[in-house]
Amino acid sequence: MSGSGAPRVAVLGVGLIGGSIGLAARERLGAVVAGYDPDPGTREAALATGAADTAADSVAAACEGAEVVFCAAPVGRLPELAAAALECCGPEAAVTDVGSTKRDIVAQLGADGRFVGGHPLAGAETAGVANARADLFDGARWYLTPTEDSEGVLYDRLQRTVAGLGARPEAIEAGEHDRLMATVSGMPHAVANALVAEAAADLASGERVPEVGPSFRDATRVAGSNPAIWADIFASNREATADAVDAVARRLSEAAALIRSGDTAAIAAWHAAAGEDRRRLLASDRPGGPLQELRIIVANEPGTMARLALALGEAGVNIEDMALYPAADMTSGAVSIWVAGPEQAERGAALVRELGHNVTVVGAGG
Amino acid sequence: MSGSGAPRVAVLGVGLIGGSIGLAARERLGAVVAGYDPDPGTREAALATGAADTAADSVAAACEGAEVVFCAAPVGRLPELAAAALECCGPEAAVTDVGSTKRDIVAQLGADGRFVGGHPLAGAETAGVANARADLFDGARWYLTPTEDSEGVLYDRLQRTVAGLGARPEAIEAGEHDRLMATVSGMPHAVANALVAEAAADLASGERVPEVGPSFRDATRVAGSNPAIWADIFASNREATADAVDAVARRLSEAAALIRSGDTAAIAAWHAAAGEDRRRLLASDRPGGPLQELRIIVANEPGTMARLALALGEAGVNIEDMALYPAADMTSGAVSIWVAGPEQAERGAALVRELGHNVTVVGAGG
Repeated sequence: MSGSGAPRVAVLGVGLIGGSIGLAARERLGAVVAGYDPDPGTREAALATGAADTAADSVAAACEGAEVVFCAAPVGRLPELAAAALECCGPEAAVTDVGSTKRDIVAQLGADGRFVGGHPLAGAETAGVANARADLFDGARWYLTPTEDSEGVLYDRLQRTVAGLGARPEAIEAGEHDRLMATVSGMPHAVANALVAEAAADLASGERVPEVGPSFRDATRVAGSNPAIWADIFASNREATADAVDAVARRLSEAAALIRSGDTAAIAAWHAAAGEDRRRLLASDRPGGPLQELRIIVANEPGTMARLALALGEAGVNIEDMALYPAADMTSGAVSIWVAGPEQAERGAALVRELGHNVTVVGAGG
Repeated sequence: MSGSGAPRVAVLGVGLIGGSIGLAARERLGAVVAGYDPDPGTREAALATGAADTAADSVAAACEGAEVVFCAAPVGRLPELAAAALECCGPEAAVTDVGSTKRDIVAQLGADGRFVGGHPLAGAETAGVANARADLFDGARWYLTPTEDSEGVLYDRLQRTVAGLGARPEAIEAGEHDRLMATVSGMPHAVANALVAEAAADLASGERVPEVGPSFRDATRVAGSNPAIWADIFASNREATADAVDAVARRLSEAAALIRSGDTAAIAAWHAAAGEDRRRLLASDRPGGPLQELRIIVANEPGTMARLALALGEAGVNIEDMALYPAADMTSGAVSIWVAGPEQAERGAALVRELGHNVTVVGAGG
């Protein structure tokens, strides 16, 4: 970075993301990491897990001499934290954040040439420095939102640092970032909540959703997850998310009219187009080719899933994604296993058949 | 049934459901099963797999002397098929169907005391007599929709027959059945389609959904599945489904307004209520207690899933449901495993920790 000595990195907020940044920066960049967290216990944990070389008890202390500063607090507190960091840092420091929405913070701080917003797509499922890992960002997209005011040298340093942590940096305009996140993340959460609320209103009190298939369970899996975090995310990305949710509401009104029409050909075409669009949107460019689904009927008893996974694993067929759809009585179920590319799919299907199960391969293609 | 000799059952349409009825009726009720299918190859397959004792080449031939007749054609063809069966049968035969919507067929045929609509909740994930199994209905809810005109003796026989196949018969009014199915099945499919369509419109051409988390993937998993079958189901249950979809659209407009307000406390409350409602709606009365979720961080490499599943299986902890949320680079991921009841959850979590993974238990309770 500075060209002499170990790069100096400050991490403000040492949870899952901040801790993983610290671990990766030390391990992969040979950086000296100063960790700050408002919670003294978390500071201790950061030292104990190796996420930081030193524990600072203030933002100013952590930022002293830092070349790159990562702000990793909850999204609602990031603008204030990043502003404090900019206040403490000299003209040679790059300051970034890891919040999941970017428009507000960039509107507030983007005119400062040292600040570039950031958002790594990693680590949504757990929290805490105890779960931090040096490889958390390996291959992960890491959005950076430079503005016309961004200092070229500092942006370049930030981008190389992020790549050094293992991520794939990608520049995007802050507003566009938020619209994208609203579509792929906020919108599905809002829709899941609406689905649940409607079902709760429709079903008689005390009635449960019959085990009619995986649709309701899958479609609502994210409903109500982490209310505090999501309230922050919704609020900080409210215009884009509300727009996307309104747009889905309009599409649903159109869908209701289509369904009411009873025009089976048009309904089938609408439904098929959704399947096509989904495959395209989720298509992967990973080695091996697009995901293929193996649909398998199995007895749902201890050991069955293990034998399946073991057979695939031993043959080098990697399970990219998996879903189990239990039958009503839980003694059997349909398993969907996604593998990369037709070659792995064929090999996997053959193995599954050898184990005595029925299997259908559903390609990502048509 | 008749009190003398083996019960005589006719199955009209020998696919997954019809074939499984035939297998279970022969194996568990000692019934003599006559199978009819318009496709000669399917008739042969029904004989070969043991789903029928005799293959009839007409509805009339299959129904001759039958005490219970199951109509198991695609939902759009059921009214005609059941009407033909009633035409052929004498006054002593109970005629039912297995279609996923009930109002239309019951409106057409319910005045005939021999007809009672039916709908087993099983077998949605695959098709074909080759996948038929005698235990397909074990523990599955099997809705029956009697009317005031239904013959008591025949309804009783039908209910006992369904129970004899392993299912749990449950009487429900036909319109109420359709509203319930619209809510828990049609509505999630329509919403998944709308989500995909909106994302396809929002994302730049050729852009893919970033691996931001499981929300979009989960929420849209059922989008576009089996267009022909779903066009039939939507069309045959169009009023109830359209009403439910309209209701979700209204809820989404309200959600958009709430999100736009930026009222984080109200948003968090809305989100938390959705989580509560979902847990209640999906709560299970199965032995062992309500589902508990184990959230585990694992390396996503051949063998990892197997070791997990194997360890749980050997300890007698049954995996009721499972989802894998791969990280962006596919080298790691979060696995959610659902098990029944806190006892299994605790035991499972301990085993997972012994394997060296971080695990969080999320109860179904609060």
